[in-house]
Amino acid sequence: MCDRKYAILGTGALGGFYGGKLQKAGLDVHFLLRSDYDHVKKYGLLVESKDGDFALPQVNAYQDIEKMPQCDVVVVALKTTQNYLLPKLLPPIVKNGGVVLVLQNGLGIEEEIAQIIGNVSIIGGLCFLCSNKVAQGHICHLDYGHITLGEYIPGYPTVGITDKIQQIAHDFHRAGIAIELAEDLLLARWKKLVWNIPYNGLSVILNARTDELMADMYTCKLVEQLMFEVAAGANSHGRNIPDSFIQKMLDYTVKMKPYRTSMKIDYDECRPLEIEAIFGNPIRQAQTAGASLLQISCIYNQLKFLDTKNQKQ
Amino acid sequence: MCDRKYAILGTGALGGFYGGKLQKAGLDVHFLLRSDYDHVKKYGLLVESKDGDFALPQVNAYQDIEKMPQCDVVVVALKTTQNYLLPKLLPPIVKNGGVVLVLQNGLGIEEEIAQIIGNVSIIGGLCFLCSNKVAQGHICHLDYGHITLGEYIPGYPTVGITDKIQQIAHDFHRAGIAIELAEDLLLARWKKLVWNIPYNGLSVILNARTDELMADMYTCKLVEQLMFEVAAGANSHGRNIPDSFIQKMLDYTVKMKPYRTSMKIDYDECRPLEIEAIFGNPIRQAQTAGASLLQISCIYNQLKFLDTKNQKQ
Repeated sequence: MCDRKYAILGTGALGGFYGGKLQKAGLDVHFLLRSDYDHVKKYGLLVESKDGDFALPQVNAYQDIEKMPQCDVVVVALKTTQNYLLPKLLPPIVKNGGVVLVLQNGLGIEEEIAQIIGNVSIIGGLCFLCSNKVAQGHICHLDYGHITLGEYIPGYPTVGITDKIQQIAHDFHRAGIAIELAEDLLLARWKKLVWNIPYNGLSVILNARTDELMADMYTCKLVEQLMFEVAAGANSHGRNIPDSFIQKMLDYTVKMKPYRTSMKIDYDECRPLEIEAIFGNPIRQAQTAGASLLQISCIYNQLKFLDTKNQKQ
Repeated sequence: MCDRKYAILGTGALGGFYGGKLQKAGLDVHFLLRSDYDHVKKYGLLVESKDGDFALPQVNAYQDIEKMPQCDVVVVALKTTQNYLLPKLLPPIVKNGGVVLVLQNGLGIEEEIAQIIGNVSIIGGLCFLCSNKVAQGHICHLDYGHITLGEYIPGYPTVGITDKIQQIAHDFHRAGIAIELAEDLLLARWKKLVWNIPYNGLSVILNARTDELMADMYTCKLVEQLMFEVAAGANSHGRNIPDSFIQKMLDYTVKMKPYRTSMKIDYDECRPLEIEAIFGNPIRQAQTAGASLLQISCIYNQLKFLDTKNQKQ
């Protein structure tokens, strides 16, 4: 079988890292860029990584979607706040029968893609990655990097490990990226929210790192209560997140290096926050199933206020 | 009947204002001071007020509770964060059969006094007052000033308008202070919390004035939801706060001049916040009665974190 051709939509801390690893492994990768286009076209990508630095002096860089080749796998590595661009970006570049791989957190992501484009497989990927873009075309990978993959079918039935996700996993393994396969994408998404909702939300609202939140008995309790609310949300959709998983997330965070969450970094750099995907959609989906996530709603409304104020500055 | 002798415990923005008004009206008032003692002993009190400025060049100032005369009415005008001082302050100065008038917000206040001292009447007063201490012995009264008074009986039965509160009301009226008499002190306390919980809490957490909170649709909704939770808390103790009251508070705040809440002022000046009286006690009392105030708990835990951090600075 020929190699699959990859497109990376959004060549930032995440897209630049994974796309760079894929190209380094010999895959045919095409990068869409905006602000960094000129630089990357000229000098390529530089990835500093705890697993070993590498440079790609030449990459296939584009700033115009119309000039990109049609690809087998289109990796959506934009922030969800930019998903309003997808109706223009996706249709021209996904091969008929190809794959859209969305590397985004939150809920409601795959439904959004499905409304834009048909006759493709949609795969959700949840990235456990600490990386930052430190300069144009220059990515700094600090920690972790594994991805959980699950295939989407409308209504999110549990589909098991499909051929499609195994193919993608194969390519990513080849690039040295650890992959976990999820039989139930919706469960995987809710599980990711167990961490993302409390830490992303509170880090912005309380101007705090993870270690500060865990060192205070009140925020530590609040984090735990928010996690239980996420589990209640999952439960409203028939997914069970056991208490032991919540305990594992708490223990894991206590042991983590002091960490500024990605939402806090976005906030500090005055970028729009991914509030709807990570907070709004879970609240609304639980509401539809009859569950009120009250403490998460409180956090949501606070974040909306802070985000608006931050964007006005 | 002879005039009642008054003691004012805590001669700040609130105690200095009301005590000053009482003395100006000819009543016998004795002020306990701490940091401002030397200044006030020498120069008295100065009150700038929207209702007319006045100076009291000489006041009965004390820094030692043992030197104060026993009084008919002891006005507790400290912040609740200083109530740990009351077991030392109250017993020496309240006349047998006298009155302790606590001008403090929140719940659990009168029970605390009742545990310290017996054979006195305890009256709760809820002040609607905008005033600041701008310098030593110098108070600036910006707006409002009326007080709601209600007598406390253990278990908070509705006691109606008692003789004791009428006597106090008489003195305050004489000093030009508007008084509303409450037949049900517990209901009055919960009603005051309808305003205090959302605005005090969110102003600190979101670094915002009342007008900013009301101009944003998300915080405006959150304020309203918090108000409904306060009403649910009141309901768990058999007190009904009608929706129309909540609507009135929202309308009233929209029309108010942009206002920095008293808790936000405390926070900005790195003073400890009255979190337990205004948030912790209502949450716990509702919990005891089987009602979970989840969004207020979220605010409570956030405030505890911020207060601790602020006190460490």
